[in-house]
Amino acid sequence: MNANVTVYVSLKEGVLDPQGSAVEKSLHQLGYESVADVRVGKTMTLTMSGDSKEAIAKQVEAMCDQLLANPVIEDFTYEIEEVLSV
Amino acid sequence: MNANVTVYVSLKEGVLDPQGSAVEKSLHQLGYESVADVRVGKTMTLTMSGDSKEAIAKQVEAMCDQLLANPVIEDFTYEIEEVLSV
Repeated sequence: MNANVTVYVSLKEGVLDPQGSAVEKSLHQLGYESVADVRVGKTMTLTMSGDSKEAIAKQVEAMCDQLLANPVIEDFTYEIEEVLSV
Repeated sequence: MNANVTVYVSLKEGVLDPQGSAVEKSLHQLGYESVADVRVGKTMTLTMSGDSKEAIAKQVEAMCDQLLANPVIEDFTYEIEEVLSV
């Protein structure tokens, strides 16, 4: 089975987000005062193959724990979309 | 009206993604051979207020054009979720 997996990595609630603060400040300087808060995160789109959706999910969680997300300050979610071969 | 807006910024098709290649290489070194391709993008979650959903959408598109996305090499999409005040 082939799949496109999208992993969303975001900072945990309460963790300082200097990047988000910098973006917010720039938006205010450009005149966008209606923006009250900005949080920046990452997305990773992976093309993967595996025996089943469950097997792919297990691999994705292991990859997130090992590399893609920092468990101390980041949370992750993911979506698995099967790619049907034509 | 208050809203949470999530902006997804990703590299355009065909644009080289050195960050994605680096992540892919690391995953292979960790033994995850089933990963064939990795593309890295950004998400920005904004807390905003505006007169209407259309007004907020217009602001988000202007902010993306001006700051949040590089129109030469990046595409963006966004979702607007109204926040109901209790």
